[in-house]
Amino acid sequence: MVKAIASSEEMPSAMHKMIDPDMALRLVVEAAERLEPVEVELGHSVGLVLAQQVAADRDYPPFNRAMMDGYAVRLSAAGGAVAVIGELAAGGVWERPLTDGQALEIMTGAPCPEGTEAVAPKEVVDRQGETVRLPESLKQGQNIAPRASACPAGRVLIDQGEPITPLTVGVLATVGRAQLRVYPRPRVGIVSTGGELIGVDETPGPGQIRNSNGPMIAAYACAMGLEAPRVVEAADTPEALATALERVAAAEIVVLNGGVSAGKYDLVPQALTAFGAELVFHKVTQKPGKPLLFARRGRQLFFGLPGNPLSASFGFHRYVAAAIRKMSGRRPQPEGGKGRLTDGFRVKGDRTVFQPARVEAGATGWRVAIQRNIDSADIFNIHHANAMVRLDPPVEECLAGAEVGFEWMSL
Amino acid sequence: MVKAIASSEEMPSAMHKMIDPDMALRLVVEAAERLEPVEVELGHSVGLVLAQQVAADRDYPPFNRAMMDGYAVRLSAAGGAVAVIGELAAGGVWERPLTDGQALEIMTGAPCPEGTEAVAPKEVVDRQGETVRLPESLKQGQNIAPRASACPAGRVLIDQGEPITPLTVGVLATVGRAQLRVYPRPRVGIVSTGGELIGVDETPGPGQIRNSNGPMIAAYACAMGLEAPRVVEAADTPEALATALERVAAAEIVVLNGGVSAGKYDLVPQALTAFGAELVFHKVTQKPGKPLLFARRGRQLFFGLPGNPLSASFGFHRYVAAAIRKMSGRRPQPEGGKGRLTDGFRVKGDRTVFQPARVEAGATGWRVAIQRNIDSADIFNIHHANAMVRLDPPVEECLAGAEVGFEWMSL
Repeated sequence: MVKAIASSEEMPSAMHKMIDPDMALRLVVEAAERLEPVEVELGHSVGLVLAQQVAADRDYPPFNRAMMDGYAVRLSAAGGAVAVIGELAAGGVWERPLTDGQALEIMTGAPCPEGTEAVAPKEVVDRQGETVRLPESLKQGQNIAPRASACPAGRVLIDQGEPITPLTVGVLATVGRAQLRVYPRPRVGIVSTGGELIGVDETPGPGQIRNSNGPMIAAYACAMGLEAPRVVEAADTPEALATALERVAAAEIVVLNGGVSAGKYDLVPQALTAFGAELVFHKVTQKPGKPLLFARRGRQLFFGLPGNPLSASFGFHRYVAAAIRKMSGRRPQPEGGKGRLTDGFRVKGDRTVFQPARVEAGATGWRVAIQRNIDSADIFNIHHANAMVRLDPPVEECLAGAEVGFEWMSL
Repeated sequence: MVKAIASSEEMPSAMHKMIDPDMALRLVVEAAERLEPVEVELGHSVGLVLAQQVAADRDYPPFNRAMMDGYAVRLSAAGGAVAVIGELAAGGVWERPLTDGQALEIMTGAPCPEGTEAVAPKEVVDRQGETVRLPESLKQGQNIAPRASACPAGRVLIDQGEPITPLTVGVLATVGRAQLRVYPRPRVGIVSTGGELIGVDETPGPGQIRNSNGPMIAAYACAMGLEAPRVVEAADTPEALATALERVAAAEIVVLNGGVSAGKYDLVPQALTAFGAELVFHKVTQKPGKPLLFARRGRQLFFGLPGNPLSASFGFHRYVAAAIRKMSGRRPQPEGGKGRLTDGFRVKGDRTVFQPARVEAGATGWRVAIQRNIDSADIFNIHHANAMVRLDPPVEECLAGAEVGFEWMSL
């Protein structure tokens, strides 16, 4: 379902005509720049992206490691009784080499002394005072993890650009990386506009509704691991918008919502221009979210999302989230897949439709259940959606069982 | 691949024999109790689970809402020119009913006055001074979202027990829930033991290795949205363990790692008993992580994970994560699926094997790429794993293309 990206020569003069959703995404990704790496403590690194390569500082295991509690012996001891010369716990070292006729009691994780050929588990031996009787069969290397068998010193363990998972943290801790260079996450500022909007804790008068987009967009940012964004509410006047833009000036990404259509009170495009931002595009051939606006001022990015909640949600998760991922060092494009519709679905119009859906793993692949909204202001009936199905024109009707492409929402 | 859960009558005296991984998980889930709900601000609720039902406080839309910028008119105006009686922005109200021969200029989001039958988009009309000419065709209800069409007042929007996503936050903000009752997440404390362990920022002497499990387990907890756990290191003595347990006493879940085998320096079981905890089980017929220990003291849970990093990782993501989910109000069982092996894989022994794997969506279902570790101390070679494949005995060899069950890791 995904169209080929147009080559550079086809790049439109974005402000003069509508562009399609692939071009819009491409322009966002091109404009977003990966942030400068910063140093963080290992304990605060999970979820970030590594900005350096990490290699093994020494061999792993760093010594021939006993894998069980038992006795380090030579193979010549098989079937016989040998003298127990001492005991070695994990963390200790036995300096002298082991010779024939000797056994060293050894604990899991301890280094086998030079000359050790096997570790006989304590469950299979017969210890009597200072002597231990060994089983008939001992194998070379039995219960010994040889030095460097997991990884030799110097081998690259984790590449620059890899996301840091808990398992990665385990690897980084092992090799002694208490501090790491990582790509930080951008800061997001939110400006909500709209004369009909009141706060969540206020009681709406006639004609008023509560501002749901500000909290929803902030929650998207938090769910992506960002610091809770600053949310500023602005009246529909040039002065109020200018003040609001100044108040979120420290954010690398500013999300405005409302005020981006072509109406009398849609002042966001002019306010951004007055603020010194260059408009990159305005209006995308997509449903929902046609009036999407994107502008930049140096490295600072501005997204104007429509005021309708579904349009705002979609605009965030497809375009703003891509910029956040790129700035954070991740692959910017939304992850997606293909799955089969549980029910039929009909599409109208000539724009690319992105329809909320609940996608779940089925026996033979993804099952895609369309969530039906009343209009682009309706998020009540689609709040279980975790993906957006993409339907490009001229598709008009998809039957149950049809294969469709989808993009995961950035949850 | 998943075995049926044994009924209560079959419940073993867990301390006297090894139990299987299903019974172990069941005992953990039974012991973990959902935490008491707390009140949080909407802005801090994303990722938590709702502990109350939420219904619509009024109709949505709360009025017949204009869906486009244009003119509110009666159908009788079709094809004619009518008087523009005024202008209504979003947030305002027009008190008088609209009558034949009248048009009200209206903005998206504003309430249509009584008597409105259609909103004609401004792009299709011809405005001349105080008169507007309308198109030949107007439809009843055109561009009007009727009051209550998305949701009538009183309808339950979100059930108790639902996880709070960004879209849910949008719904909750709309209906005015500035404060919410949610299930909090448990606090986790970590106690690392092992004479061979040094800190991440220290230089290992002979026989020593850095403590990787403490940071890895802390990272797992952070990745699940929990506060960064307190990590305490304890020497292998009863006194040191007792002190360490006191230091993490405020945590609902205590994860100990190391010291759970049956060796001379494996003092965790005794330390827990001395601390007043009841041992629920010790040793599970699984690989890795056979010496897994689980104990409780009232509502406080204790997990003794083996010191080997892969065993510790698996023990966290299968058992500790299940307890965290249950306490947080989520479905406790690990999510899983079935997929096809990209390469063959051979299994030895009579325990259930959980093997790290990278699972990705393929064209016809899940593709399961086994990650091959050297031993259960090796996380270098498996750190791209995102799932654990489950192979129950007597399976010995799985060929490429074979269907296997897997459980997602709690990342």
